[in-house]
Amino acid sequence: MLINCVAYQHGHKLADIPVADISDHIAEPDTFVWVALKDAKNDELAVMQEEFSLHELAVEDALRGHQRPKIEEYGDSLFVVVKTVEMVDDELVLGEIDIFVGDNYVLSSRQNSAQSFMGVRARTEREPHLLQHGSGFVLYALMDAAVDRYFPIVDAFEAELEQIEERIFLQEAQRANIQRLYELKRKVMTLRHAVAPLLDAIGKLHGGRVPAMCISSQEYFRDVHDHLARINGTLDTIRDTIGTAIQVNLSMVALDEGEVNKRLAAWAAIFAVLTAFAGIWGMNFEFMPELKWRYGYPVALAAMATTCLLLYRRFKRAGWL
Amino acid sequence: MLINCVAYQHGHKLADIPVADISDHIAEPDTFVWVALKDAKNDELAVMQEEFSLHELAVEDALRGHQRPKIEEYGDSLFVVVKTVEMVDDELVLGEIDIFVGDNYVLSSRQNSAQSFMGVRARTEREPHLLQHGSGFVLYALMDAAVDRYFPIVDAFEAELEQIEERIFLQEAQRANIQRLYELKRKVMTLRHAVAPLLDAIGKLHGGRVPAMCISSQEYFRDVHDHLARINGTLDTIRDTIGTAIQVNLSMVALDEGEVNKRLAAWAAIFAVLTAFAGIWGMNFEFMPELKWRYGYPVALAAMATTCLLLYRRFKRAGWL
Amino acid sequence: MLINCVAYQHGHKLADIPVADISDHIAEPDTFVWVALKDAKNDELAVMQEEFSLHELAVEDALRGHQRPKIEEYGDSLFVVVKTVEMVDDELVLGEIDIFVGDNYVLSSRQNSAQSFMGVRARTEREPHLLQHGSGFVLYALMDAAVDRYFPIVDAFEAELEQIEERIFLQEAQRANIQRLYELKRKVMTLRHAVAPLLDAIGKLHGGRVPAMCISSQEYFRDVHDHLARINGTLDTIRDTIGTAIQVNLSMVALDEGEVNKRLAAWAAIFAVLTAFAGIWGMNFEFMPELKWRYGYPVALAAMATTCLLLYRRFKRAGWL
Amino acid sequence: MLINCVAYQHGHKLADIPVADISDHIAEPDTFVWVALKDAKNDELAVMQEEFSLHELAVEDALRGHQRPKIEEYGDSLFVVVKTVEMVDDELVLGEIDIFVGDNYVLSSRQNSAQSFMGVRARTEREPHLLQHGSGFVLYALMDAAVDRYFPIVDAFEAELEQIEERIFLQEAQRANIQRLYELKRKVMTLRHAVAPLLDAIGKLHGGRVPAMCISSQEYFRDVHDHLARINGTLDTIRDTIGTAIQVNLSMVALDEGEVNKRLAAWAAIFAVLTAFAGIWGMNFEFMPELKWRYGYPVALAAMATTCLLLYRRFKRAGWL
Amino acid sequence: MLINCVAYQHGHKLADIPVADISDHIAEPDTFVWVALKDAKNDELAVMQEEFSLHELAVEDALRGHQRPKIEEYGDSLFVVVKTVEMVDDELVLGEIDIFVGDNYVLSSRQNSAQSFMGVRARTEREPHLLQHGSGFVLYALMDAAVDRYFPIVDAFEAELEQIEERIFLQEAQRANIQRLYELKRKVMTLRHAVAPLLDAIGKLHGGRVPAMCISSQEYFRDVHDHLARINGTLDTIRDTIGTAIQVNLSMVALDEGEVNKRLAAWAAIFAVLTAFAGIWGMNFEFMPELKWRYGYPVALAAMATTCLLLYRRFKRAGWL
Repeated sequence: MLINCVAYQHGHKLADIPVADISDHIAEPDTFVWVALKDAKNDELAVMQEEFSLHELAVEDALRGHQRPKIEEYGDSLFVVVKTVEMVDDELVLGEIDIFVGDNYVLSSRQNSAQSFMGVRARTEREPHLLQHGSGFVLYALMDAAVDRYFPIVDAFEAELEQIEERIFLQEAQRANIQRLYELKRKVMTLRHAVAPLLDAIGKLHGGRVPAMCISSQEYFRDVHDHLARINGTLDTIRDTIGTAIQVNLSMVALDEGEVNKRLAAWAAIFAVLTAFAGIWGMNFEFMPELKWRYGYPVALAAMATTCLLLYRRFKRAGWL
Repeated sequence: MLINCVAYQHGHKLADIPVADISDHIAEPDTFVWVALKDAKNDELAVMQEEFSLHELAVEDALRGHQRPKIEEYGDSLFVVVKTVEMVDDELVLGEIDIFVGDNYVLSSRQNSAQSFMGVRARTEREPHLLQHGSGFVLYALMDAAVDRYFPIVDAFEAELEQIEERIFLQEAQRANIQRLYELKRKVMTLRHAVAPLLDAIGKLHGGRVPAMCISSQEYFRDVHDHLARINGTLDTIRDTIGTAIQVNLSMVALDEGEVNKRLAAWAAIFAVLTAFAGIWGMNFEFMPELKWRYGYPVALAAMATTCLLLYRRFKRAGWL
Repeated sequence: MLINCVAYQHGHKLADIPVADISDHIAEPDTFVWVALKDAKNDELAVMQEEFSLHELAVEDALRGHQRPKIEEYGDSLFVVVKTVEMVDDELVLGEIDIFVGDNYVLSSRQNSAQSFMGVRARTEREPHLLQHGSGFVLYALMDAAVDRYFPIVDAFEAELEQIEERIFLQEAQRANIQRLYELKRKVMTLRHAVAPLLDAIGKLHGGRVPAMCISSQEYFRDVHDHLARINGTLDTIRDTIGTAIQVNLSMVALDEGEVNKRLAAWAAIFAVLTAFAGIWGMNFEFMPELKWRYGYPVALAAMATTCLLLYRRFKRAGWL
Repeated sequence: MLINCVAYQHGHKLADIPVADISDHIAEPDTFVWVALKDAKNDELAVMQEEFSLHELAVEDALRGHQRPKIEEYGDSLFVVVKTVEMVDDELVLGEIDIFVGDNYVLSSRQNSAQSFMGVRARTEREPHLLQHGSGFVLYALMDAAVDRYFPIVDAFEAELEQIEERIFLQEAQRANIQRLYELKRKVMTLRHAVAPLLDAIGKLHGGRVPAMCISSQEYFRDVHDHLARINGTLDTIRDTIGTAIQVNLSMVALDEGEVNKRLAAWAAIFAVLTAFAGIWGMNFEFMPELKWRYGYPVALAAMATTCLLLYRRFKRAGWL
Repeated sequence: MLINCVAYQHGHKLADIPVADISDHIAEPDTFVWVALKDAKNDELAVMQEEFSLHELAVEDALRGHQRPKIEEYGDSLFVVVKTVEMVDDELVLGEIDIFVGDNYVLSSRQNSAQSFMGVRARTEREPHLLQHGSGFVLYALMDAAVDRYFPIVDAFEAELEQIEERIFLQEAQRANIQRLYELKRKVMTLRHAVAPLLDAIGKLHGGRVPAMCISSQEYFRDVHDHLARINGTLDTIRDTIGTAIQVNLSMVALDEGEVNKRLAAWAAIFAVLTAFAGIWGMNFEFMPELKWRYGYPVALAAMATTCLLLYRRFKRAGWL
């Protein structure tokens, strides 16, 4: 689905143009075309491929989708894949935005993502001095917008982890805790797949040998790099902390179990003593003088109660009860 | 076993040629020979070695088989080993395809693999403009076909992992779960051995100093690189997740055990109390007035039942029963 | 909030100058301006941006805060972010100091940090021969001061770890131990986030291609590098040790539990034997000769006591009691 | 102990020569001397040092033994240490072969190794066209022979691991399993010490800047490199698998224990119920009408049996028995 | 404390010289001064700083102590920190030796170390042909001596580990084992801090760009490098093995516990059966014919004994007893 197809000159919007005129406009000097697609179909991409002379392999990747984030050079043009991430019903949904960048064009194709990048266009159009940097700056603006949307996800992860941590040393909800830790780990791994390869790739766009259209925006790409590195660092810490938390959780489970065992031991001991006493006085020997005593029974009961009480206090002091 | 032996010119099939004529054809300019063997025997390879002047060490490797995936340069020619992977009866079967590539020839020798690469030849012959790139493109087509067959295996791994995950937090089948996790890990490791060394090696075929016959197909090799990186990333995640799942599983086992222990403790306590009561009234003291009461027995039974009930409710509330 | 705004010449303080004059002073040769802000607001930074012609992205970073430590070049100027670390109520509080460095100016902006860097200025002013190195040396002095304040934190971590270690093999406080280990790990990870990225970045300021204003202070930056490497190494060891300690703790818990189990088994056995004996002599068979014996009862009691004593000594010897 | 001392010319054996003539022969052009020692003593090595002008540090290393595998350049000569590995009584025995290589000599000194390298000499002498490559090729032949002997060891490790794996999910021999895993891990680590440093070092002998005498044998050294990489990869997998197996084993132990606990709980419950019933009817109340019934006893027995049976079937269905 | 202050010429000792003359001697050509300090005080180092024109930062490091091992270049001079390691009362004591090296001087300052390096001086003086290499060789001799003293420590670690391993599969001393493993790990980590940074740093002294005074001793520094790599490899293996041993230990504890549980279950079952039988015949039903039988009691006892025996044998066969 075509969302926008606009020609720009010297940083200012020239006009919305029909798709068929794209190749004419990008042939003109100082003009630059920015097209946005959404969930593009084969024939739409085929038209674009012809208008922009895109490389076959890049178009194939964009069609198939489910690519790793990457930045590939095809001659003078770039093919960039950035993952979009959304939280829908507590589940991470990955989409992707495929960006074809040439000297004087940008074609962005968004797939499986509810996020709109129209704000990026609006904001960029309001700053002609930046838009004058050309396609490289538009690429930056798109990447920056996509990466900025990772931050709330990471914040949500950190909040979730903190919530779990608050409950990890309580003697309840261990099963739920561990399940939440496991779920969180999976989400972290998913986001990491969106972040880490892009972090590796984006170094190509600043410092060292940089594609021509990105040279004047290098410092902006370094900024995106920095954001990605920050996110990646936080994800690594969360991952590491989850690992420790699962280990700790196992220790807590063992400790809790140990305590139940001790309490069980204590009560079992008390009742076993009681039963043993009763058993002794329930024996049928003929000559058991205490059985004939007037106050034998209450004394026996008192003796049993006292013993139990002594045991109880001893266990209490030992921390078993 | 010889499968095909075909000469090509300017991207078009010239003719099936006899093995003995290979050296004549590759001496002609613009001509290029593509031979396919299957489970080749020593003498077949010996003939090929002579016709193509292959390097002794490469032929030795092809004969012995069980090589790591690799890409080796011998002067102007390449020796490439790619693992083929098939799922037979829920077991991973590794084969390999050894590819000798020169300026104007490709010799592929498939071993221990039921997968045919004849589709690759057919598809390539239908695209003369690509086949014109020469032996480098054929190498790409073969590697791409082999690597594409890793994807369904990886998908099967992910499906298997998801199945296990659905059952990991249930209180059953823990033993089966852990066994399946272990099996899955082994399969992942096996596939990783096919993927990781090739991922390291294939960087030689794009970017940097690239062998002559691969220069015009660089972007295609980068595409294979990208596929391998994607598979490798997924395998790493599966491996990491299996590790966590085994840890989590241990915690779940400990938790389940803890719950059994608690329940055991609770029932044991109830019956111990019952037995202790019965023991007390079974003592043989002469003066136990309640034993003479008319309703002593039913009252005693009622007292015992009430105590048990109270305990039962208390344990229920504590979540022990 | 402006703290200081001072112009220097040949290493000596010239005068406190108003903010509006900054751009005039830095236009003069041999003069150099050092401004310190604290929790700067948007408009303060906007003024600074104009006076010093700071790069938009750097100012944005300084405004938003929560940056990773980093050292970025913007043309001839540097933007440096260093984390400040304070221990408040046993919690690590991270602040940051953002330093903009040009050929003849230093602008430091401290955020969320109770630590003052005025001592740095005082000490530096007392050493004109060092201050003559210019803005690079001031950058060093600020970084050195910030990094030096990491050391007491690391020492506190080590002390805490030692305290925990002393109690890890005792049969008590396991729950508290593990909780403290977990807390410590989190603090270590937080400090590591302040240290590790800076350690990676600071290599740019000594050896290799170094920004012009830092060349004459290279050896000083190497010294800071060395301090960071020392801290990082210690943090890694603490982290590793915590991991082992948690593992060991789990073993200790299992061992303790095992011992409780053994003791329980032993006492249960003793009382079970007692009860079984009593049960036998409590049977109602008519012909049980020992029941009629004169000393049947005491003998029975003695037998029971002896058996229990034998068991007790046997268990004692086996280390179960 | 001197084993061989032979001079070669143009790839053919010239003659066995006395040690004292070595320096004369290596002074001649096109001649090349190959000496083999076994468990060399100080004086033997001293003679060799003089004849070949070996570097003091290299000789010292050879004398002391227990070196890491390494490849060191001393001016124009090489000093190579390769570990030999033998399986004696199920124990890994490490020896080493120290190889001094110059432009026209090879001195190999074998220590603590029952393996003979005479086959290497015999095979090499049969291939004069290869031996013509000179000392570099002899070095290759020796390294290749040593490394080839790692393969059966690795195969034995894999077989052992498979044997253990077959038994890991059985409910027996857990103690033996874990001990075997531990032993295997130790052996793997030992072999890894022989393999990994050599793998790092051998890169110096192919690709990049290669010592003069090895240039013409580069592809052979790459082959050894490839073998080492294969072994190293397999060792890493075994190591990783052992780690997982130990983890899994712990889970299995916990599961088994849990099952014993459940069974214990079940039987304990059944007998506790029995005892409680008996205790109730063993009470001494005067008015317990059922005690006077004609068929009270058999009915009571039947009630007790029925209850136990019901419990038994319930536990059976719950999988506890 | 000054230990030695000696001037050398052409590899021979010239004379012990007063500290004040140092600067005169090092101004002369071909002369070279070697000073050794022990636990140097501020004023001693200040004098040295003046005589040798040492760099302020290096002197500061030497004064403060507790440095990481490192090799730093200050202009034409080197500042080297090597850790000394001693075993005092089963505790590792770290000291350090700070070495300042210039073209024609070596100043070594030993701190917190009982080890004397006078043997190094004596040995070096006996080999004028080596001492002629100048200050670089003295640096090597000192580093070599310090590193050689790591070996017995590492050997002690390995011996300790072997001792623990022998007892790890025994059913006793688990608590002591794990404590010893933990202690060993701490010592290993401490030594690693002395080894690993030096291993990284020493690469600067051989191969690549080497400081002028070390060029002629490069092969000697490579030898030290090799020693450090060997120690580091061994420490890594010990560390890895300790990790596995702790894991294994946990499994052994769980296994032992499981066995205690089984035994407990078995004995509990036997006595529960006994008690249940006794309970049944202790019931007070009027019509229990077996109670009246002449041989009821002995038969009952026999039945009980038989049942217990059967159970005992069954449990024995199941391996529970």
